[in-house]
Amino acid sequence: MSGIRHLAAFADLGAEQAARVLGLAHDYKRHGAPALLANKTMGLLFADPSLRTRTSMDQACFRLGGRALGLDVGAGTWKLEVEDGIRMDGDKPEHVREAAPVLSQYVDGIGVRAFSRSGTVDEEDADAVLQAFKHHATVPVLNLESAREHPCQGMADMLTIEEEFGGCRGIKVALSWAPHIKRLPRAVPNSVLLSAAAMGCEVTVAAPVGYELSPGVIAQAEQLAAASGGRVVQTNQQTDALDGCQVLYAKAWGATADSAPPDDPALAEWMPRLSHFDRADPAAVFMHCLPVRRDVEIAAEVLDSRRSRVVSQAGNRLYVQMALLAWLFEQ
Amino acid sequence: MSGIRHLAAFADLGAEQAARVLGLAHDYKRHGAPALLANKTMGLLFADPSLRTRTSMDQACFRLGGRALGLDVGAGTWKLEVEDGIRMDGDKPEHVREAAPVLSQYVDGIGVRAFSRSGTVDEEDADAVLQAFKHHATVPVLNLESAREHPCQGMADMLTIEEEFGGCRGIKVALSWAPHIKRLPRAVPNSVLLSAAAMGCEVTVAAPVGYELSPGVIAQAEQLAAASGGRVVQTNQQTDALDGCQVLYAKAWGATADSAPPDDPALAEWMPRLSHFDRADPAAVFMHCLPVRRDVEIAAEVLDSRRSRVVSQAGNRLYVQMALLAWLFEQ
Amino acid sequence: MSGIRHLAAFADLGAEQAARVLGLAHDYKRHGAPALLANKTMGLLFADPSLRTRTSMDQACFRLGGRALGLDVGAGTWKLEVEDGIRMDGDKPEHVREAAPVLSQYVDGIGVRAFSRSGTVDEEDADAVLQAFKHHATVPVLNLESAREHPCQGMADMLTIEEEFGGCRGIKVALSWAPHIKRLPRAVPNSVLLSAAAMGCEVTVAAPVGYELSPGVIAQAEQLAAASGGRVVQTNQQTDALDGCQVLYAKAWGATADSAPPDDPALAEWMPRLSHFDRADPAAVFMHCLPVRRDVEIAAEVLDSRRSRVVSQAGNRLYVQMALLAWLFEQ
Repeated sequence: MSGIRHLAAFADLGAEQAARVLGLAHDYKRHGAPALLANKTMGLLFADPSLRTRTSMDQACFRLGGRALGLDVGAGTWKLEVEDGIRMDGDKPEHVREAAPVLSQYVDGIGVRAFSRSGTVDEEDADAVLQAFKHHATVPVLNLESAREHPCQGMADMLTIEEEFGGCRGIKVALSWAPHIKRLPRAVPNSVLLSAAAMGCEVTVAAPVGYELSPGVIAQAEQLAAASGGRVVQTNQQTDALDGCQVLYAKAWGATADSAPPDDPALAEWMPRLSHFDRADPAAVFMHCLPVRRDVEIAAEVLDSRRSRVVSQAGNRLYVQMALLAWLFEQ
Repeated sequence: MSGIRHLAAFADLGAEQAARVLGLAHDYKRHGAPALLANKTMGLLFADPSLRTRTSMDQACFRLGGRALGLDVGAGTWKLEVEDGIRMDGDKPEHVREAAPVLSQYVDGIGVRAFSRSGTVDEEDADAVLQAFKHHATVPVLNLESAREHPCQGMADMLTIEEEFGGCRGIKVALSWAPHIKRLPRAVPNSVLLSAAAMGCEVTVAAPVGYELSPGVIAQAEQLAAASGGRVVQTNQQTDALDGCQVLYAKAWGATADSAPPDDPALAEWMPRLSHFDRADPAAVFMHCLPVRRDVEIAAEVLDSRRSRVVSQAGNRLYVQMALLAWLFEQ
Repeated sequence: MSGIRHLAAFADLGAEQAARVLGLAHDYKRHGAPALLANKTMGLLFADPSLRTRTSMDQACFRLGGRALGLDVGAGTWKLEVEDGIRMDGDKPEHVREAAPVLSQYVDGIGVRAFSRSGTVDEEDADAVLQAFKHHATVPVLNLESAREHPCQGMADMLTIEEEFGGCRGIKVALSWAPHIKRLPRAVPNSVLLSAAAMGCEVTVAAPVGYELSPGVIAQAEQLAAASGGRVVQTNQQTDALDGCQVLYAKAWGATADSAPPDDPALAEWMPRLSHFDRADPAAVFMHCLPVRRDVEIAAEVLDSRRSRVVSQAGNRLYVQMALLAWLFEQ
C-alpha cells in the first residue's frame, strides 16, 4: 500500500506540497486542466449533508476528465462502525474494515464527509472515521470535512488570500469566533488555522473564554508557523485580533462538549459589523466559508460590502480541489 | 448579466419563442439533437421530491452532450432563505444571495424545484424562490416546478397536442379540476393554461366554486389568448367544458389556503369516467401530467382506454426539455 | 415486446445463460470490457437503501461505456402501487402501470431494488414488484434485490467459487443460517441456493426449525440441481452442513412472518467461529455477501482469517454485473 497518497488531514499534505497545490490551483483557474482523472471515479461518501462540497467536488472531478459518484450514508447518521474489536449489536450494520476495502475495488478514490458526533475534544483530536478509512482503504482517501479538519476549505481560503495579496507570507489574519444559534463543528477554523500557519500567515485566533480551539490543533499550527516564518497568537479579546488585520475571517464554532461556557448575551457583540473594520488595515477583506446566517453570525452589511470575498472564496473550492485531486493521484 | 436567458416562468419565454421551442422539440424527437451542452453541467436543485422530472431532465442534458447534477435541498423542506433583510435565526441556514452566485461558479445552469409552502394566492403569484434565483444567479435558471408554474410540463403538453392534431390553434381544451385526497399544488394547471392560451387553444377551465385558479394567472392567460387568437373561459360546471372538447385535460388541484371550500362529497362526480366523453368530440383524447391516483382522481377505465395519452405525454417531457435547454443556452 | 430480456429472477436467465455470463465475467475481469452500453443509461430505482449495489452497478455501467442514473423512491417505503384494480387512496400516489412505461421512454433499462414489505412466504414467492416492472416496462428490467431474489449477488458468488476451485460442479457448499438482531430478508440465501444448484454445486442448506427457506425456492433449486448434476439437501443441524464442506456460506435471515419461531438463546451457537471449520475440508473458504455484524452474525476471527473471501466476493459484483448487463442488452 506504500505509494498511495491520502488527504485525511493537513498533515498528510504538509507545507511544501500545500504550496505546490496552490500553484497548480492558480494554473488550473487561469488555463484549465488536463484530463488527469480520465476513466477515474471518485466515490464521495456523505454521512452529513452537503451542497457546496458535493457540487464543487463533482465538478472538480468532471473538469479533470473523471467523475464523482455521490453516496449517502444513512440519513444524517453515520452507519459505519470504525471502532475495532466491538460486538456490532448497535445501529451500525457495517464495519469500515469491510466497507473501505470493498469500495476500494469499485472506485479509484474515496472522499468522506463525517462530522463529529460527540463533539468532544477527544473525538476531534482522534478523527477516527477518516483515520480508519485511511488505514483500511487501498485507494486514496480525501477528507470532505471530518470531526477535526476540512482541508479543502482551508486550502481554498489560502488561494483566495494569495489572489488578494499576491501571497500568504506575513499576511495578518484575524480568525475570529462568531455567534450562532447552534453549536457548529470546529473543522473549518481548525483547517483555516493550519493552512494559514503553514503558508506563513500571522494568525491571531480570537475566541471567548471556553470557546478556544483545541490544544492539539493549536500546537500543530504553532509548529507549522515556526517552520514557515508565520505566527499563531491566541486571545480572548476580539479587538486584539482586529488591530491592523488584513483579513478578517469570522466563523461560528461551538465550545467542545467537554466545556460548556454559559450563554452570555454579550457574545452577540462578536458578530462582525462594518465598524469592526475601524481598527483593520484599510484594504482589509472579509472571509467566511459559507453557509452564513445573516445578522446572526455576520452582519448583512459586511456580507454585502465591497470587503466581502465570500462568493469568490467559495468559487475557489473548485480549483483547489482540482489541484488536490491532481496531487492525490500523482503517480 | 444581460444576455443570460432564464425560464423561471412562461413569461420569460413568451409565445413566439415557445413556438420555436416546440418546433425544435419535434425536430429532436424525429432526428436526434446536436451536442449543444458539451462540457456543460446543469445543477438540479430539488427542494421537493421528483422522479419523472429528475429522470427526464438528466436524460435531456445527456442527449445534448452535457450532464445534470441532482442536488437535494433539505428533506422535503426548503432550507434556503429567499426573503431580503431578514435576521436568519430560523430553520434556513443559507440565503439565496450567497447560494445562487456560489452555485453559478460551479455549474453552467441551475434548475430549481420548489413547491408552494403556504399555499396562498400571494405565494403562488410572487413565486419568490424562482424569482430570487433568477435575480441572484449569474447563469441560466430553469423552473422544474415552482409555487406558480411548471413550464416544462405545460410545454410538453403542447407538443402532445401538436402531435395529435397537427397544431394547437383552435383546439378545444377542457382543463378540468379533479378530486384528490390531498391539496395538490396548482403549478401544473397554471402552466397548462398559460401554454395553451399562448399557442392559440380555446381553453375552458372548469373547477368547483372555491377551486378557481388565481386571478393573476387567469388574467395573464387571457392576455396571451388575445394575442394568439385563442380563448380562455372559466366555469364552475364541468359539463360546460366537456361539450365538444377535443382534449380533456383533467388534474387535481387544491383550493388556495386563503379559501377553504367545504368538503362536498358531490365533488367526487368530477372524477373523469368514460361517460364524461359522451359530450366530447368523437376523436377527443385524455391528458394528465402524472402521477395519477387511479379511481380517486381519474377512473382507471379512462387511463386504460384508447383515449389516454398520459404515457406519450410524459415521454414528450424529454424532447421539450431538450429544446428548452437548447433555447436557454443559445449563443 | 418479444425479444426484450429481463433479469427479474434467476428463472429469466436459466442455467445455460448463467454459465455464459460467468464466462464473460471472468473475461471482463482479466481483459476489460468493450463499450457495449455506449450512449445507454440504466435507471436504478431504489426503494430500499443500498451502498454496495449502487456503487458497483454504477461502475459496471461506466466500464461498459454507459451510465447509471440512481433514483430514490420514497424514503425507505415503496411508493409505487403494483396491485391491479385497486382504488389508490392510500400512501402510494403512482401505479407501476404508468411508472414503468414512462421510465421506459427515458432510459434504456430499469434496475429495481424493493425488499419484502410483509415478510410473508406469499409475498416472497409472488415477488410482485419485479414481476410488475417486467410486465409493464418496455425496456430490460434488472433485479437489484427483491422480496424473493438477489440474482446479482448469487451470480457474483458463483464467480468467486469458480475462481477459488476452478469450477462449481461438485463443490460442497454449506449454506448456513446465522443469528442477527433483526429479521433480515431472504433474497440472498434464495439466490445463492438457486445459482449454486444451477451451476452444479452440492448445497446443504442448514437452518434452525422455523427458519427453513420457502418450499417454492427449495423446489426450484432441486429442479435446477437435477438438471445440472448438483444436489440440494436441507437440514436443521448445522454440523450436517459443515462436514467436509469446501465453502461455508453463512448468512443471517429471518423466519417468514407466517412462522414465528421462539427466540432461542442456543441459536447464538450458529454464529460461525474458526472452530466451525474443524469438520470442513482443510482448504475450505468462508463467504458472506456483506454487510456483516461482527461477533453477532459472524465471529470477527473468521472474517479476519485467511479463509475469508468476503472482500473479493464483493469485488466480483462488479464483473458479474457487467456481464449481466452485456447479456441483458444482447441484440
